[in-house]
Amino acid sequence: MNASQLRSAIYIAALCGLYLSTAMLVPVLVDVYYGHKDWKVFAVCAFMVGGLSMTTAMATRSAPPTFNKRMGFILVNVLWATFSLVGSVPLYFSGQDMTFAQALFESISAITTTGSTVLSGLDHMPPGLLVWRSMLQWLGGIGIVALGLFVLPFLRVGGVSFFKMESSDTNDKPFARLATFTRAFVGIYVGFTVLCTISYDVAGMSHFDAINHALTTVATGGFSTHDASFGYFHNTPLLWISTFFMTVCSLPFSILIVFVVRGRLDALRDPQIGVFLLYLLFFAVTSAIYNHFAFDIGFGPALTHGMFNFASILSTTGYASQDYTSWGPFVVVAAFVATFIGGCSGSTAGGIKAYRLVIMAGVINTGLKKLIYPNAIYSVRYGRQTVDIEMQRTVFLFFSTYMLLWALGSMIMAALGYDFATATSSVITALSNVGPGVGDLIGPSGNFATMQAPELYLLSLMMLLGRLEVLSVLVVLLPTFWRS
Amino acid sequence: MNASQLRSAIYIAALCGLYLSTAMLVPVLVDVYYGHKDWKVFAVCAFMVGGLSMTTAMATRSAPPTFNKRMGFILVNVLWATFSLVGSVPLYFSGQDMTFAQALFESISAITTTGSTVLSGLDHMPPGLLVWRSMLQWLGGIGIVALGLFVLPFLRVGGVSFFKMESSDTNDKPFARLATFTRAFVGIYVGFTVLCTISYDVAGMSHFDAINHALTTVATGGFSTHDASFGYFHNTPLLWISTFFMTVCSLPFSILIVFVVRGRLDALRDPQIGVFLLYLLFFAVTSAIYNHFAFDIGFGPALTHGMFNFASILSTTGYASQDYTSWGPFVVVAAFVATFIGGCSGSTAGGIKAYRLVIMAGVINTGLKKLIYPNAIYSVRYGRQTVDIEMQRTVFLFFSTYMLLWALGSMIMAALGYDFATATSSVITALSNVGPGVGDLIGPSGNFATMQAPELYLLSLMMLLGRLEVLSVLVVLLPTFWRS
Repeated sequence: MNASQLRSAIYIAALCGLYLSTAMLVPVLVDVYYGHKDWKVFAVCAFMVGGLSMTTAMATRSAPPTFNKRMGFILVNVLWATFSLVGSVPLYFSGQDMTFAQALFESISAITTTGSTVLSGLDHMPPGLLVWRSMLQWLGGIGIVALGLFVLPFLRVGGVSFFKMESSDTNDKPFARLATFTRAFVGIYVGFTVLCTISYDVAGMSHFDAINHALTTVATGGFSTHDASFGYFHNTPLLWISTFFMTVCSLPFSILIVFVVRGRLDALRDPQIGVFLLYLLFFAVTSAIYNHFAFDIGFGPALTHGMFNFASILSTTGYASQDYTSWGPFVVVAAFVATFIGGCSGSTAGGIKAYRLVIMAGVINTGLKKLIYPNAIYSVRYGRQTVDIEMQRTVFLFFSTYMLLWALGSMIMAALGYDFATATSSVITALSNVGPGVGDLIGPSGNFATMQAPELYLLSLMMLLGRLEVLSVLVVLLPTFWRS
Repeated sequence: MNASQLRSAIYIAALCGLYLSTAMLVPVLVDVYYGHKDWKVFAVCAFMVGGLSMTTAMATRSAPPTFNKRMGFILVNVLWATFSLVGSVPLYFSGQDMTFAQALFESISAITTTGSTVLSGLDHMPPGLLVWRSMLQWLGGIGIVALGLFVLPFLRVGGVSFFKMESSDTNDKPFARLATFTRAFVGIYVGFTVLCTISYDVAGMSHFDAINHALTTVATGGFSTHDASFGYFHNTPLLWISTFFMTVCSLPFSILIVFVVRGRLDALRDPQIGVFLLYLLFFAVTSAIYNHFAFDIGFGPALTHGMFNFASILSTTGYASQDYTSWGPFVVVAAFVATFIGGCSGSTAGGIKAYRLVIMAGVINTGLKKLIYPNAIYSVRYGRQTVDIEMQRTVFLFFSTYMLLWALGSMIMAALGYDFATATSSVITALSNVGPGVGDLIGPSGNFATMQAPELYLLSLMMLLGRLEVLSVLVVLLPTFWRS
């Protein structure tokens, strides 16, 4: 990296800081409106972060550097690191007695739309702080979709480049197209948020809860304003509204955009959509049947909670309507497996993702056939497209790295003293940006409040790795990357 | 499959039956020698199975059919199914009140060299029965090595074909080479067994225990003649002798053969050997350090038990010197992770195996570099050889299938009522042919005695899948396989 690239990386970091310090004015207004003294914390933080950012921005302003892939990787990492750090500042200085590790963990959990929290007693927190957490998730959500749509394809990470908008689009003027798509994308994201807020409000949430939960639903983040999450409301329509929005926001945004811009329903034929909805139904229905027979719960309520909690896990949101880990071992193991899987690519969801599973299934199917007829030509299909060997290799690369990080992380968590269920599930829930794990400590009715700095840093790193499709972060750690 | 292929599959199954019924005469002699009435069970079984087999063999004898890959897959499955069934007959009829599911599970656990047992009170079992279990493991061990050396490369399953003996060998006369290698291979296997028996005997085991444990050590099987496994002996030299033989028998036999036949040490340079020994040391030393500091155990004993128990897991043997799952969470999670990994290819060990890990590491390394320099050519290396994309695809195929089976199996075990640790570890310990899992029930101090028929059948299937490199079994389940 040369000096001009470093300079512009710092410049962009400073702009992010400026952007977030402006965003801090929202919690200031909220706290003032509710008459809570915490507004001063946010005002001071906004002033200080804003001042520091502006000075830095002015000092490093220069002609844009040559933009290459290496710069792209640096920027992605710098962006998420800056958002995480700046987001943690008001958390650290708020009156919640958070250590720096806790504040950073909470901020990264927000920005990565994970939704694990170190805070308990949310019901009595200052409203500004709650809004700040929700806002960070919402911004993290729009950020990751933008990254998936506009940056990762260029960097060829995790095979997202496979999903070109449409082959016919390549003839359009690129910038006109970009502008149209960006407008559509922001429109959809904001539109969903407004719709979700209104729906929650109508179904019985307070205005404050409705806005906060809409922000974290659309981002598939999962922060709540209550320790009991959706269990607080005891309201079935709310669960179904949330299930609907969590599911829709786990679908690929590129497809939603094409659908909105072009009005073409055939864009919805992306195979990963069907697969995602199928496995969501599979988990929800099997757990409902299991609960119906094992605990004599009516099939209706069992299905409501099954749908809600598995939509929450598979969309990598992380809300809970009940402590589903008390539903018996099947649901525990199913929730654990679902935590690996996740939603669709190009959405706010994390995990291994449906399109990789489709490709893996294709590799298994053709691989077995090839054993019988070694000379026959079988191609792995993704819908109507052929998945080339390079793309298969990228999926393999991602999957191997994912499982390796999980195994290594779980061993470190265990060495830090956490039991089998907590160690193995904390790492995968962080990597997949889900939120809760299994086991008493970090299950849906627990939280990360008792964790110490080393494990909080480890899980923070896992959340960032998972959010940036693992490879974008690891690549920066290679010595080769820094060789000129 | 045509009629002549079916006929010869049955013929070969009958020959296996005949072979095993002859082997049953050994437990007859053992029980007679120790004056135990159980000899009648084995004598009657030998007579009946032998008679049935001989009649079937005579009825189906015919000219050998055209041998193709499809026939190869059928034979592999038929062989292991027959051995499993015939092996279970005397177990079922012995005086141990075993259900058919239990007898079959015990027999499959033996033949696949897994070492999970449904029996408790081993210390007071009829000696013939104990010898039968040990013999089945020893035969299963020699069977799997022969399969890996001579059959799987031909079927191109799991990429074993990559490991040609040596490039210079392709010019030899194939049958002369086969005879030499077979002699060397049987010689090594028998030689190790004799050496191991003598070592155990000298170090303090009874003759009976020495022979039984040698049979199950060389096969990396793990059946013991005592409920407490190696914990029964309280003898440190025994632990190190066993560690040595378990480790050596997890090395690729093809390499040992070349070493013995040609006397060439450079054959030992196979990268998987170094990697296997490295991760064995890693697990053993870290667990020893952990135990040393966490429980104030002397470093010497901690290392002895660390080496023994991790050599046992990674060689997929399954002995235990202590209940290592009581050593705290780090060792539990490390043992769980080690259960996935396994030993080297072409040995009696199971699991994902070291050579696949080497290739996965290569794919990750070159994949990350390729993200920085997309136009550069990076090849994945295995030692001095280049791993072609087809080989990478095969490893991906195996790894995806392995993880998928683990996830599905764990969910079924949980649906049958088993807790998180038991459900997730029982399936992987069966797939990897290790033996014990984690958790109280099936941990190193537990056994599978309380399990019911459905879960025993599921785990039996997993053991067979794992032993036959997964793909050889799955391929037979494809409809395409049976289409002519």
